[in-house]
Amino acid sequence: MGVVLSFEENSAERASISPLVEVTAAGMQRVNRVVVERTQSNVTLIPEVARYLIDSGGKRLRPMVTIASALACGYRGDAKIKLAAAVEFMHTATLFHDDVVDESDTRRGKRTARLVWGNQESVLVGDFLLGQAFKMMVEVGSLDALAVLSAAAATIAEGEVMQLTTAKNTETTEDEYLDVVRAKTAVLFSAAAEVGAVVAGADRSVRAAFRSYGANLGIAFQLIDDVLDYGGEAPTLGKDVGDDFREGKVTLPVVLAYRRGTDADRAFWRRTLVKGAIAEDDLACAVSLLDRTRALKDTVERARHYGAMAHDALAPLPDEPAKAALLQAVAFCIARAH
Amino acid sequence: MGVVLSFEENSAERASISPLVEVTAAGMQRVNRVVVERTQSNVTLIPEVARYLIDSGGKRLRPMVTIASALACGYRGDAKIKLAAAVEFMHTATLFHDDVVDESDTRRGKRTARLVWGNQESVLVGDFLLGQAFKMMVEVGSLDALAVLSAAAATIAEGEVMQLTTAKNTETTEDEYLDVVRAKTAVLFSAAAEVGAVVAGADRSVRAAFRSYGANLGIAFQLIDDVLDYGGEAPTLGKDVGDDFREGKVTLPVVLAYRRGTDADRAFWRRTLVKGAIAEDDLACAVSLLDRTRALKDTVERARHYGAMAHDALAPLPDEPAKAALLQAVAFCIARAH
Repeated sequence: MGVVLSFEENSAERASISPLVEVTAAGMQRVNRVVVERTQSNVTLIPEVARYLIDSGGKRLRPMVTIASALACGYRGDAKIKLAAAVEFMHTATLFHDDVVDESDTRRGKRTARLVWGNQESVLVGDFLLGQAFKMMVEVGSLDALAVLSAAAATIAEGEVMQLTTAKNTETTEDEYLDVVRAKTAVLFSAAAEVGAVVAGADRSVRAAFRSYGANLGIAFQLIDDVLDYGGEAPTLGKDVGDDFREGKVTLPVVLAYRRGTDADRAFWRRTLVKGAIAEDDLACAVSLLDRTRALKDTVERARHYGAMAHDALAPLPDEPAKAALLQAVAFCIARAH
Repeated sequence: MGVVLSFEENSAERASISPLVEVTAAGMQRVNRVVVERTQSNVTLIPEVARYLIDSGGKRLRPMVTIASALACGYRGDAKIKLAAAVEFMHTATLFHDDVVDESDTRRGKRTARLVWGNQESVLVGDFLLGQAFKMMVEVGSLDALAVLSAAAATIAEGEVMQLTTAKNTETTEDEYLDVVRAKTAVLFSAAAEVGAVVAGADRSVRAAFRSYGANLGIAFQLIDDVLDYGGEAPTLGKDVGDDFREGKVTLPVVLAYRRGTDADRAFWRRTLVKGAIAEDDLACAVSLLDRTRALKDTVERARHYGAMAHDALAPLPDEPAKAALLQAVAFCIARAH
């Protein structure tokens, strides 16, 4: 581990997801087979709906984190496969439910399952996946892993409810927004990393290191996602831009721009995000306000802070490819914003 | 509020505690009178012990935050005085108790009260001050302010107990250390700021802004204190340096240096902090390890992040001297490390 070179100095050459993909390739092949097997059902609608989302090109970052964390702890056994698949199912279940709750029309560039099959189907297939996730955890038989993942499931649900109460509130503080991100996003990354250490039989301090790595990676990941939804740190209005804006989501860039802005700026955010009165050129206007208040740049700056924390969390672990891959994934998540 | 100039760009000229001292001067005169009155007792030992610590040159930053927060919300009434005094008493009570728990010999360059009068006396005078603090809050009669401050008192006690379990554990993660800082230090700053808004009758979002300001100021303040205990960002071994080291405290600079260090570094930290086997030149060695691993510089960097959050928390409030003073106090807290 570079004592002399800091994270910042190193981050450019280290920003790559490829090492994580490579180091987890063998494991992820097996995870993907488990995912296919466990979406089978005699109720033919279930595999159809489940695969529609599962096969839609998600990065599978969370199960890769589980596999790599187990490897970084020296684990070579099989239990990590089912736990990684369980983590991916938990994630997919929340996407199904989120799309219903948010009444979203597109996800990953496709129509959402709720539009193709219906809201009821989306909610219930999400529940099916959650059930399958718990079945796999039970099969693994580690009560510690079950404790970590079931606590995460409860916190995620809590975070969703919390978000209902903060949604469309432009006066949300950064701390309040972070509470939601911690509960909705960071906790699953955190659990994904920690269960890797758990199956490896790692001790308390190593588990804490992975828990902390995952939580901070998750926050950094979400903040950069927030920035990308407005086109990145130096925004350009591409085709994947503006979903959060159209859905009236109050993300960190908006929190900062709202707080730092003029009264006229605030009136703009309330009209567009809270009242949903969005004219054609409003997205361009939003981007220009975010730019003028440095909200996008400073959200990336905030993400760097959490990235640095994730990096330091793993610092004491022995150097090996899986650890290096996890660290490079942090830098990659942040570098996406440039 | 500077939309164009960011916090970072402005921080140099803004780093001063004087505006906060000036804007709260009239209020603090009255707070200081209340402090003297409320340490009176027929039990003559009580004022003697209480004043020994209260008059020992603390900065009274927390009650100043309460006064300035109330002023920034446009409040001109009297209730802020007793609440500010209550905040200072809560703080002083924790110092009395801390010194007993940590078996500390010096505080603010003087022998601790527990050495002069004894542990029992220090614990009980701390309890007396807590009781007086609650009496004053009740006299103010705001159930909301009581809720904020009593929740803070409970959390602080919880934080102290949490610290007992993490104390002398060099494998503490940054997140675990931050949990302790949030509970032990940040929550009182947070409550100090929020009750200022509460007595002013501020609405939910303004209260949240002050709560967030105080919490993040508190974290930044503690992290810079941690750095100063090793002589600052560019360390020099002055006379006020090394208390944390001698007491075996695992603060953020140590957390980072331990995680980033070599096996030999880690053995050094365990020997000195956990086993307490400290030789004459070990403090110099500790400082050099902190320097080599960039732990002091990066702790300041982390503090800047929380300072930026504190700054953004207050951004939407109307510009006026009390708000400007609170923002300059953040910059001042961080600039102390240089």
